[in-house]
Amino acid sequence: MPTGHVYIATSIDGFIARLDGGLDWLESANSAGEDHGYQAFMDRIDGIVMGRATFDVVLRFDPWPYDRPLLVLSRKLDSADIPSHVADWVTIVQSVSDALAEGQRRGWDRVYVDGGATIQAFLDAGAISDMVITRIPVLLGTGLPLFGPLSDDLPLRHVETRSFPSGLVQSRYEVPR
Amino acid sequence: MPTGHVYIATSIDGFIARLDGGLDWLESANSAGEDHGYQAFMDRIDGIVMGRATFDVVLRFDPWPYDRPLLVLSRKLDSADIPSHVADWVTIVQSVSDALAEGQRRGWDRVYVDGGATIQAFLDAGAISDMVITRIPVLLGTGLPLFGPLSDDLPLRHVETRSFPSGLVQSRYEVPR
Repeated sequence: MPTGHVYIATSIDGFIARLDGGLDWLESANSAGEDHGYQAFMDRIDGIVMGRATFDVVLRFDPWPYDRPLLVLSRKLDSADIPSHVADWVTIVQSVSDALAEGQRRGWDRVYVDGGATIQAFLDAGAISDMVITRIPVLLGTGLPLFGPLSDDLPLRHVETRSFPSGLVQSRYEVPR
Repeated sequence: MPTGHVYIATSIDGFIARLDGGLDWLESANSAGEDHGYQAFMDRIDGIVMGRATFDVVLRFDPWPYDRPLLVLSRKLDSADIPSHVADWVTIVQSVSDALAEGQRRGWDRVYVDGGATIQAFLDAGAISDMVITRIPVLLGTGLPLFGPLSDDLPLRHVETRSFPSGLVQSRYEVPR
């Protein structure tokens, strides 16, 4: 089975997007030209899993931002819903276990898990190995949360934290098995 | 007017207490004997403001943990509700502006603002100068949140971040005027 890895930015109050999916607050924070390690993270990733909501957001990006195969977790979409310009990259899967099985079938070692609901589902399934969380120095007040309810406390192991002149603070946590 | 200062611990998912006010997850994280700077913070504080919910929690602490005067923000409590063993320390105030006026009357420069709802009310009133936020490496899933809705985005200025062998990550942010 591939291991799940999170690399995500949140506001100080824990939101990964505005209620409408908007990322404007994130783009302005990203304009400092700093290297926050995204490419180094992606270089070690074999495939990506995200939910329908995140997929709808990234479909608006031009050019298409990924050079890895992408699994979209959705019980409603089917392959006819995938725009043709990304059809070679995208496969629909129904569940976390389907996503992991599909990754295993393709020989993936490490999968990038993106989007709040998808990260929550993978955490609850015990399928996340580590998380790189970058805190953007802004309070949004409302938005789509990174985390959600869990069946039990989940202690994490802090690995390292670094901060950037722009004010971003990036921490990496391992999720104990 | 005194300036408001926050020094608070949260889970990675942004909770400052369990739904019943429980702080057990925090006490276990605090057992490492590390100096996270609480005393140095308190040495520069003239008085404390907190809401009814936080007051109910700290009333359970034995011995009484503060050696500074305390304003409790509540529209329901009155002075007859204050237990006699803390009566010399505690005054009830009705609103953020009452608390600031009372602090000013007493010649306070810096007030420690504690508790989620109270911090949110002071933030919304523009009465917080800086926040020291310590992230405990655990996901709780549910609980009482540190932050809440705001009337607008509130950009913060990151001042410094330090991490501890126990896994705590402490950041200080200034709130621009």
